[in-house]
Amino acid sequence: MQTEIINIGDELLIGQVVNTNASWMSEQLDLAGFPVHRVTLIRDDPEEILTILKEAGQRAEVILITGGLGPTKDDLTKETLCRYFNTKLIFDPVSFQNIEKMFHARGFAMTEVNRKQAEIPENCIAIANANGTAPGMWFEITKTRAGTKQIYISMPGVPFEMKAMLVNEVIPRLKKCFQPVTVLHHTLLTQGIGESFLSDILEEWEAHLPENLHLAYLPQPGIVRLRLTGKGDNEVSLQKLMDEETDKLKSLIPEYIFGEGDTTLEAVVGNLLRNSGTTLATAESCTGGYIAHLITSIPGSSAYYKGSIVAYSNEIKIKELGVSERVLEKEGAVSEAVVITMASTVRNGFGTDYSIAVSGISGPDGGTEEKPVGTVWIAVAGPSGVKAVKYLFGDNRERNIRRTALQALNMLRKTILEQL
Amino acid sequence: MQTEIINIGDELLIGQVVNTNASWMSEQLDLAGFPVHRVTLIRDDPEEILTILKEAGQRAEVILITGGLGPTKDDLTKETLCRYFNTKLIFDPVSFQNIEKMFHARGFAMTEVNRKQAEIPENCIAIANANGTAPGMWFEITKTRAGTKQIYISMPGVPFEMKAMLVNEVIPRLKKCFQPVTVLHHTLLTQGIGESFLSDILEEWEAHLPENLHLAYLPQPGIVRLRLTGKGDNEVSLQKLMDEETDKLKSLIPEYIFGEGDTTLEAVVGNLLRNSGTTLATAESCTGGYIAHLITSIPGSSAYYKGSIVAYSNEIKIKELGVSERVLEKEGAVSEAVVITMASTVRNGFGTDYSIAVSGISGPDGGTEEKPVGTVWIAVAGPSGVKAVKYLFGDNRERNIRRTALQALNMLRKTILEQL
Repeated sequence: MQTEIINIGDELLIGQVVNTNASWMSEQLDLAGFPVHRVTLIRDDPEEILTILKEAGQRAEVILITGGLGPTKDDLTKETLCRYFNTKLIFDPVSFQNIEKMFHARGFAMTEVNRKQAEIPENCIAIANANGTAPGMWFEITKTRAGTKQIYISMPGVPFEMKAMLVNEVIPRLKKCFQPVTVLHHTLLTQGIGESFLSDILEEWEAHLPENLHLAYLPQPGIVRLRLTGKGDNEVSLQKLMDEETDKLKSLIPEYIFGEGDTTLEAVVGNLLRNSGTTLATAESCTGGYIAHLITSIPGSSAYYKGSIVAYSNEIKIKELGVSERVLEKEGAVSEAVVITMASTVRNGFGTDYSIAVSGISGPDGGTEEKPVGTVWIAVAGPSGVKAVKYLFGDNRERNIRRTALQALNMLRKTILEQL
Repeated sequence: MQTEIINIGDELLIGQVVNTNASWMSEQLDLAGFPVHRVTLIRDDPEEILTILKEAGQRAEVILITGGLGPTKDDLTKETLCRYFNTKLIFDPVSFQNIEKMFHARGFAMTEVNRKQAEIPENCIAIANANGTAPGMWFEITKTRAGTKQIYISMPGVPFEMKAMLVNEVIPRLKKCFQPVTVLHHTLLTQGIGESFLSDILEEWEAHLPENLHLAYLPQPGIVRLRLTGKGDNEVSLQKLMDEETDKLKSLIPEYIFGEGDTTLEAVVGNLLRNSGTTLATAESCTGGYIAHLITSIPGSSAYYKGSIVAYSNEIKIKELGVSERVLEKEGAVSEAVVITMASTVRNGFGTDYSIAVSGISGPDGGTEEKPVGTVWIAVAGPSGVKAVKYLFGDNRERNIRRTALQALNMLRKTILEQL
């Protein structure tokens, strides 16, 4: 069975907007058992739309179309769909009610243009749009030959509207129509180890995985997501197999796994602090506030996070963080002694249970032979004392800042777990 | 003339990687006078590659292909190109020298697989890859009918390698081949005004723009980029026209423009501080370190930035920033009095010329009727004193943090300019 995506929009073809819809849709469809074979981006042009519909119609059983459904472009895509299916627009009362409800909720008056959004091709079923006014459209075509089905789905291009529609409406209906094999997936989140080192450790386990299970490495700076995907006919036995293999995987790399599924390290650390009723402060040099930013990106973080001293000069390290001039001269700002003092001072000064301190050379300048760019000291202080670890990251400033922050958060995570 | 892009890669069709190449290439090609009509993403599959080459070959004069050129996938794409053009692979000594040079620089030993990367289809010209081992390939086909040209270009999928190749090698050659109209563009960066308000101010000027000039609004949270694009046959007169209209545009919204081209607000502020030999400190509440992070994302920022106190609790505002308990009780943490004290204390304490202080309600919780989510006070202190302004942003936490930081940086920028 072939699945294709068609993304319509001039803005995608002049580079004004990155087409994130394509990769997001592809991932969701793939994980639902509908691997995507082709994605085509075309302009808001009726002839182009008609051409690609004909082409895709020759190849695929499932064709998903996004874009061209805004109130001003409405007639264009819908009338092109009418031309393609040789049908006409009719008024859909249910879609109209949804549009009325949307306008009422936002306190706007409806215009004739908005009323037209409730018109859909006669041969389709409207798909409810929970987050917008333009309804989606579901066209189910029975091909004469052997009675096989072909489905066309037209959705808005606005990611927020499309995503809810795809996950809540379209994929469940597609599953009913085609009953694809069951696909289960489970993601483990790792920090502090690169993709190639992970794959060395996991090589043997991977080689012995059942044929219907597959591991994907999804690396980002500082984090590698491990996604185990299983395919099968029986959901119960597949789930059992997935759980068994996930347990084996976890037992191979326990020290690197910080979470599962869609979470982030800052959210995991935040939950640990909240649930244990403890508090945190930070003292940052080379990360320049990025650790504080990650922590405070989580709603409600003020419950456990008190603040930070960003000491981007030695003067401030001395004045605000109690680092002695003598130590700075003797050991340098990027040293064990300095981060330990920073962590202890901010923990005492801010009156928190835990603290993080970092000092390093993010680059591109400031490196020496002894302490090259990428050298970082990280300290974590807690009720049982303070410890510091030295790391050597790479030569890219942005990545060094990101990796230092993640490494520090993971060190804190482990420290909190030891206390529980 | 039609231009098409073909992106090859399984990783793009399972959602593992967002296809940023397509939008980036589209933008560069559009601005160079080669508007893109269609983008197709397909799998690493020889039959799929062959099919799309045939299809695109029927439609377009310029066909750009990315992906499938890594050492392990080499034979696949190159041999498919050989099949399509009915030719064979030959050894290219110049590409081989480049590969040898790359391996030498990285200190790795070459293998037979790497040697094969220097093999290219006999009917193409190798395009130098400044950032990798796989050469690009330029196929120039003269169609019999009327002697029109058709160009196929195969490039690596790695963005870093593709980008340099497209800009430095491919686009200049395409321009020589097809002599498209001259396209000039100029981008102005604005902060502190939304797209619709900007378009109200600019409406009349836009309506009187010469037909060959066009303005695009490129909005991001807190920033709107205005890109003026001109097309014409004579570069000198087009440049003159562009300059005139850019000057008119600037005169309409001088207070909102913080820069031009590809820069950022944090870089503009950094340059002002560096060039005036002045220094900065920050005191952040609701932005939780994000302002410090933006400032320190600029290499060399330690020359002018001393640090920040992130006071995410009232206790720390009292202890570290000299805010009085009485004022906190009477006025609340989100108030003029509090940000003014924060700005003054950090400026004095850190011994800097300038300081920024922010306090607000980022949301989703913490809003009241009097101070709803999105309420923010920003203060900037400098040699001439301290001033504070109240803003009301929206209800999205992430956007509120971003908009507050940008607004504060722009307020600082204006304060520094007043001092010069």
